[in-house]
Amino acid sequence: MTDLPMNGANALIRTLLASGVDTTFMNPGTSEMHFVAALDDVPEMRGVLALFEGVATGAADGYARMAGRPAGVLLHLGPGLGNGLANLHNARRAHTPVVNIVGDHATTHAQYDAPLQSDIASIASSLEGWVRSATSPAAVAGDAAAAVHAAHGRPGQVATLILPADVCWLPSSGPAEPLGIPAHTPVEAARVAAVADVLRSGEPTAFLVGGTACLSGPLESAGRVCAGTGAKLLAETFPARLERGAGRVAAERLGYLAEFAQMQLDGLRHLVLVEAESPVSFFAYPDKASDLVPQGCTVHVLTVPGEDSSAALAELADLVADGAAPLFQAGGRPDRPTGALDAETMANAIGALLPEGAIVADEGNTTGLFVAGATAGAPPHDWLTLTGGAIGYGMPVATGAAVAAPGRKVLNLEADGSAMYTFQSLWTQVREGLDVTTVILNNSSYAVLNMELARVGATAGGDRAKEMLDLRRPDMDFVALARGMGVEQASRATTAEDFTEQLEAALAMEGPAVVEAMVPPL
Amino acid sequence: MTDLPMNGANALIRTLLASGVDTTFMNPGTSEMHFVAALDDVPEMRGVLALFEGVATGAADGYARMAGRPAGVLLHLGPGLGNGLANLHNARRAHTPVVNIVGDHATTHAQYDAPLQSDIASIASSLEGWVRSATSPAAVAGDAAAAVHAAHGRPGQVATLILPADVCWLPSSGPAEPLGIPAHTPVEAARVAAVADVLRSGEPTAFLVGGTACLSGPLESAGRVCAGTGAKLLAETFPARLERGAGRVAAERLGYLAEFAQMQLDGLRHLVLVEAESPVSFFAYPDKASDLVPQGCTVHVLTVPGEDSSAALAELADLVADGAAPLFQAGGRPDRPTGALDAETMANAIGALLPEGAIVADEGNTTGLFVAGATAGAPPHDWLTLTGGAIGYGMPVATGAAVAAPGRKVLNLEADGSAMYTFQSLWTQVREGLDVTTVILNNSSYAVLNMELARVGATAGGDRAKEMLDLRRPDMDFVALARGMGVEQASRATTAEDFTEQLEAALAMEGPAVVEAMVPPL
Repeated sequence: MTDLPMNGANALIRTLLASGVDTTFMNPGTSEMHFVAALDDVPEMRGVLALFEGVATGAADGYARMAGRPAGVLLHLGPGLGNGLANLHNARRAHTPVVNIVGDHATTHAQYDAPLQSDIASIASSLEGWVRSATSPAAVAGDAAAAVHAAHGRPGQVATLILPADVCWLPSSGPAEPLGIPAHTPVEAARVAAVADVLRSGEPTAFLVGGTACLSGPLESAGRVCAGTGAKLLAETFPARLERGAGRVAAERLGYLAEFAQMQLDGLRHLVLVEAESPVSFFAYPDKASDLVPQGCTVHVLTVPGEDSSAALAELADLVADGAAPLFQAGGRPDRPTGALDAETMANAIGALLPEGAIVADEGNTTGLFVAGATAGAPPHDWLTLTGGAIGYGMPVATGAAVAAPGRKVLNLEADGSAMYTFQSLWTQVREGLDVTTVILNNSSYAVLNMELARVGATAGGDRAKEMLDLRRPDMDFVALARGMGVEQASRATTAEDFTEQLEAALAMEGPAVVEAMVPPL
Repeated sequence: MTDLPMNGANALIRTLLASGVDTTFMNPGTSEMHFVAALDDVPEMRGVLALFEGVATGAADGYARMAGRPAGVLLHLGPGLGNGLANLHNARRAHTPVVNIVGDHATTHAQYDAPLQSDIASIASSLEGWVRSATSPAAVAGDAAAAVHAAHGRPGQVATLILPADVCWLPSSGPAEPLGIPAHTPVEAARVAAVADVLRSGEPTAFLVGGTACLSGPLESAGRVCAGTGAKLLAETFPARLERGAGRVAAERLGYLAEFAQMQLDGLRHLVLVEAESPVSFFAYPDKASDLVPQGCTVHVLTVPGEDSSAALAELADLVADGAAPLFQAGGRPDRPTGALDAETMANAIGALLPEGAIVADEGNTTGLFVAGATAGAPPHDWLTLTGGAIGYGMPVATGAAVAAPGRKVLNLEADGSAMYTFQSLWTQVREGLDVTTVILNNSSYAVLNMELARVGATAGGDRAKEMLDLRRPDMDFVALARGMGVEQASRATTAEDFTEQLEAALAMEGPAVVEAMVPPL
């Protein structure tokens, strides 16, 4: 420590810490060097290095989904934000709180339009969250406190603080006071009563729960409501964090395929949204509806993101459940599979082995189809999904979840095509000794796009189109890729027995492991 | 072919072709499936698949730098554009023409705010180029023609066409007529005459050439001017494409380090800009000037990007050169190096072996310091550099350059840290059989940031800061990574002799090869 006045970077980091942000995922450059240097002055701030910005932003998403509080992200100007944008998009859709710090040229340098300059605020505006440029070292600590407050929301959001280099290196006036964590907005009793009236009608009703309503407490209240009224319990297609497994109330996820979702919703007269969006098709298709709510079904809103779903559901249960006990998921696992390795035997192996308290980061796409079913009765665990549809979320989110939840095993189901967007995550996992088992589902194709090519009714789907969806030529070798990133425990499985054994070994050890499952496309 | 009316995707692709765009680098998703399907109807359009969007956008940059005409890029909504943004930023700074097609949800689907929706136009606006949303299948072909026209500029730019899915699948009114290629803007005689007057003053003068003035023709004219007047010839720090080597007029590049650039500019009374920006520091540093023009030096503009530098320089030479012959670079190569492998022996091996007509995609950063000197007298070749400072440009640009220039060897000098942003490029190189030799400069650190940490005068630079710049723990194995991506010819060199032999073997074969050079940090 010196007698010099604290610089802006130092004041900013101390303010983040005081506000509850003690981890920053980073891929810094020159304009962020004073932030980096300040890590030695403030050892309570953990800096986690990523080789690519999408790893840092996805890790911040995974971290906050599990920790319930934001991590910081440190990126390098507009191009760094661009590289991190896809996973910030997913965080935005998950309502994850993220403190997104984007270094910029010094305020005095901006006039020169140096090569790395671009309009950072325009890029950040696509995240539809809080955006502020720190313009002075006197104000930067207050900006940091405001960023954390904004990130918490309610609902959570990506709060972007653009941080010019000189604001970091100039003397500051010291850290700022934290602004506190906003509470969830309470829900007025009339809204709860209106939903109670719907339920008393006796007409076919379903609940569609999302966001914080996918945690076990609110799910149990929802389960009481459903047990007492005969309503159906559905979860949104892509929850940020779904608590599930034996002894918990299970909510069937709405299908990704519109046709499947429509079957789940068929015959409903009422659909009650709890922090969920009214169901729409993920993509549009020629001659198919985008709005998936059946004709004659009325949509009711119990809560929107940021509201206190837990209290609202508990209150509703008291009104209508009449003491009915919720239906808890029975325990049970599939047998260890034998024979050919395919989507089903792969799923059964996971169901047979998933450890209690596991966190599953699921980007298994088509090949992962059977895993949710095979693990339904496994011991309690968390399920994290691709909230915003931006591919390459799984490996970074697994990384961040492992940082947030030491002592819990993270299982990352990762489709081969998706793995190639943010594969650099493995390096950070090794560096930080994170307890993540990655299962690469290698079917050598963008299988979901092969399916979509047919579904969109594209005219030809000839050889040249299919070539654009084919990941052979050359075949990827994920064991070699993992070794290249420093993962020592990496293996390839071609039979169900192999896969089960390799997965068991990976789950039994502590630290990063990769199992490449060679599975035929569905 | 069918009797159905041609859909929007088909009309768009045919218009691109008619406008001279016959190659599209792509990483498509569901909303782009009709574009992909149309590849079977229009076999003249070459689709090149990338595993990550930054590979596609960087490849389009490299392609156009060598082909002199744009390639198309096909990306998947806002997150796809985000992933591709860093290399589009580099293309923007290079004034490279790129036809950047970003698929979007169907126009009828936008109202539902489905998970992948975001404000694509905001992200694209950071590229400061032409942006248009195709809103109808009747207009989309005209939009495509306008996009190609806009991309050509002058100067070239990234033209972004946002392409809703239904605009692709609905019947169109067929292809549109090309809008032609804009000519370079002529330079008025008075401006040339004014620069001639400056030169006649006899005061110390330098030319700083950039953009198209770095091609051999304009360089030769600039060389005549300098030979006739004693002016100094400098090239911008990061030219998009510099033609150099034995028998060409050499232009010394302005140093990246401000201190070095200031030495090069010291004592000048006049600086004449030819498609170059007035020199500024790449980053700002505490207590250092951003503007590098020496006191007492007047800046003159001969041409700005988009203007006809070739004609202006020729005209100027006729006015002032008085028949003086330019100084052509003498031929000569370093000896094959022996002993320890370091930045200098690595450079000498490249100088000893660089083939005539090679295209060098240089992202060698600190370790690459000596390569330009060692190759100055090598047979004529092209040198491509990191125009916008967004890391991860080298491997994609090498990929695109190889697509544009079959029959020419591409040599990609790639620093280890930089390689990890767009490593997926190797897969596309294997798939397309591209003749690229990648030299990975493995010094196990973000060496440039270690240098910058000191230069920015950061207070501490203690262990925790240095850890954020250290790429050991774990060590990366680039041979394993290359094998994982399907590269068969991959090897690691630890001595100068090994490196020279491995590089020679890689250059002798046709197709992708990787040589990992283990070099200590400078």
